[in-house]
Amino acid sequence: MNSSQFNFEITKESPSSKARLGRLTTPHGIVETPAFIFCATKAAIKGATPDDMWREKTQIILSNTYHLMLQPGAELVAKMGGLHKFMGWNGPMLTDSGGFQIFSLGHGSVAEEVKGRRRSSRPKSLLSITEDGATFKSYLDGKTHVLTPEKSIQIQQDLGADLIVVLDECTPFHVDKTYTEKSMHMSHRWAERSLKEFQRGDPDHQALYGIVQGGVYPDLRKISADFVNNLPFFGHAIGGSLGADKAQMAEVIEMAIEPLDPQRPIHLLGIGGISDIFYGVRQGIDTFDCVHPTRLARHGGALVPPFVWETLGESSKGHEHMNLRNSRFREDERPIDESCDCHTCKTLSRAYLHHLLKARELLALKALTSHNVHFMNRLLSNIRKAIAAGSLDEELKKWVA
Amino acid sequence: MNSSQFNFEITKESPSSKARLGRLTTPHGIVETPAFIFCATKAAIKGATPDDMWREKTQIILSNTYHLMLQPGAELVAKMGGLHKFMGWNGPMLTDSGGFQIFSLGHGSVAEEVKGRRRSSRPKSLLSITEDGATFKSYLDGKTHVLTPEKSIQIQQDLGADLIVVLDECTPFHVDKTYTEKSMHMSHRWAERSLKEFQRGDPDHQALYGIVQGGVYPDLRKISADFVNNLPFFGHAIGGSLGADKAQMAEVIEMAIEPLDPQRPIHLLGIGGISDIFYGVRQGIDTFDCVHPTRLARHGGALVPPFVWETLGESSKGHEHMNLRNSRFREDERPIDESCDCHTCKTLSRAYLHHLLKARELLALKALTSHNVHFMNRLLSNIRKAIAAGSLDEELKKWVA
Repeated sequence: MNSSQFNFEITKESPSSKARLGRLTTPHGIVETPAFIFCATKAAIKGATPDDMWREKTQIILSNTYHLMLQPGAELVAKMGGLHKFMGWNGPMLTDSGGFQIFSLGHGSVAEEVKGRRRSSRPKSLLSITEDGATFKSYLDGKTHVLTPEKSIQIQQDLGADLIVVLDECTPFHVDKTYTEKSMHMSHRWAERSLKEFQRGDPDHQALYGIVQGGVYPDLRKISADFVNNLPFFGHAIGGSLGADKAQMAEVIEMAIEPLDPQRPIHLLGIGGISDIFYGVRQGIDTFDCVHPTRLARHGGALVPPFVWETLGESSKGHEHMNLRNSRFREDERPIDESCDCHTCKTLSRAYLHHLLKARELLALKALTSHNVHFMNRLLSNIRKAIAAGSLDEELKKWVA
Repeated sequence: MNSSQFNFEITKESPSSKARLGRLTTPHGIVETPAFIFCATKAAIKGATPDDMWREKTQIILSNTYHLMLQPGAELVAKMGGLHKFMGWNGPMLTDSGGFQIFSLGHGSVAEEVKGRRRSSRPKSLLSITEDGATFKSYLDGKTHVLTPEKSIQIQQDLGADLIVVLDECTPFHVDKTYTEKSMHMSHRWAERSLKEFQRGDPDHQALYGIVQGGVYPDLRKISADFVNNLPFFGHAIGGSLGADKAQMAEVIEMAIEPLDPQRPIHLLGIGGISDIFYGVRQGIDTFDCVHPTRLARHGGALVPPFVWETLGESSKGHEHMNLRNSRFREDERPIDESCDCHTCKTLSRAYLHHLLKARELLALKALTSHNVHFMNRLLSNIRKAIAAGSLDEELKKWVA
């Protein structure tokens, strides 16, 4: 499975935790891990161009199969030369399987956020889940679509990202253990079908990740991890619900990781909080993704380390960002974060950003997106340096109050 | 009035028309004329950063006194170091007087467009016009404000743009000649008051433009041009209604320009159509401004020269732009304009831009804004080269079908 164009090399292991440094090689470049993956949902980062992403030191982005299969369609993207060419991003890229959106939209919980639209109510879109796959209605025009494991792989082959992912059922968090177990076994059968479809195609140009499911049940997580570990995936992702609090999340991740081959890269799906990233890194996670940094920017929030709160004369406890809409910034000539080298912090003041947000100017979204992207890339870069220097505990104190 | 930091030098005059090449020197750099001025209404170009503007060869931008006096307020901008520093634009800049918006909002005609908002209906905001000035209600919170000639100059001094403009009454197009004449004389008295207030301040760091009024009546235009020409302004602007058709506009502009000192730069307010710019250049206009190129971009329109329509197998007659929302572009792998060197044309296809517009992605607005800004700067650059080479007639054929 590990073709010549793909490789994952562990360059340093922490003596005191499972944290590690790695180099993930793809046909579009190398990702130094641990790394953060930004969400270009519909083949575009909202508020940043590929150039902006490079300038702010981004290594890798992802796009969503669910959105792209519906608009503009995977065949069109293939005809236009694939996602990299279509959107003008020449670096490493991942696509997900489409499952997360179908199932979370279907259950109606995080629907509106995931769709990237704001509507107060909408009918549930998931029509059925069977052994074959999922039937759902398009959020755009209500047309019926079927997504099977094979179809998800075919779509991801058309899209042409470097790293692709098997289809799984993203089990809702409120179901019982019996449902979760049944769902997990079906996801395992879907993983085998995904792998088979992948191998039938042109497996040298893409690398496939298997997904560990099992919900919040440590024993199921272990079973699932053992299962996917025995299949020849390039890497592993940890999906589904991780629990209601930090303690449960810790246990779930630990059980999900323990059986996995440490030579394969491990991705944690949908996690982007600063303290969660430190936690995941110490558990051996290599890559993270989350819409949080770019979405937060579009709501006027700038990610900042604790010392910035201290310069405002406030406790930083519990704050991972500042809201530039707040009138306290109206006459504040300082940049968001004096220690930040992003384009926004080098050129614009908090007062100007506050004005742009109040005046509902587009530029606010772009400026804050650049900052938050840079922040995440700086955070992960510092984490990598701290792993190399054996100073991860000290580094944590600079970022988490 | 022409202080040492400001200068306008005519470097070439066309033998066959009044077209001329010039160099307009300001404390923030030189503007090669004829030039186009882009609108950063609320201290931001909608859809472009200052960096984007530089990259697409922009020489000069403007901001609107009306919007900035209401939000965030001129005193705040002054406190933050002035507009240049506040918004991170270090090149030449102009502010208008605030009059255009107050009067056009007051008369209720182009109100919504001017405000940069889309609302179906709103009460008229102009409460009174007297010899002293105009009283109006803020479009933001309904509070009452008074703008006098002196106040407009003080605000523009606080904002700190290089080029500033006297307050005039922007006479509505539907009034009769008696009203237009009366209004013009009041504008003249306001021009004298504006000039006096300007001279009372620190006139070395800014340069003041007087405005020629007189509506669609050639005889009034001549009277107005004579009047402002006799005052020591750095430059002249032509304001108010230019008429209902091209023939009337031609006569009005001709009468408005003829009496003006040709050694001073001449600005034509609010004109940005391609054929109108060629016409204005031949009449001796040095600078133009209009929201059209950047607003068009936000509606999915890309400015293109006629040959682009011909490659689509269509007559270019009457087309100055293409609408990328059109489904004909769904699978079109070509850039907007193969002859364009803008960042968008060098990296993105029509098919991708069509997708972004259909998916309502922010990036579409940014990509099209960059293209349209580059287009206008390329147009004006080519016009300057054609004036130098004596080939303006040939150049016109490349841009206007």
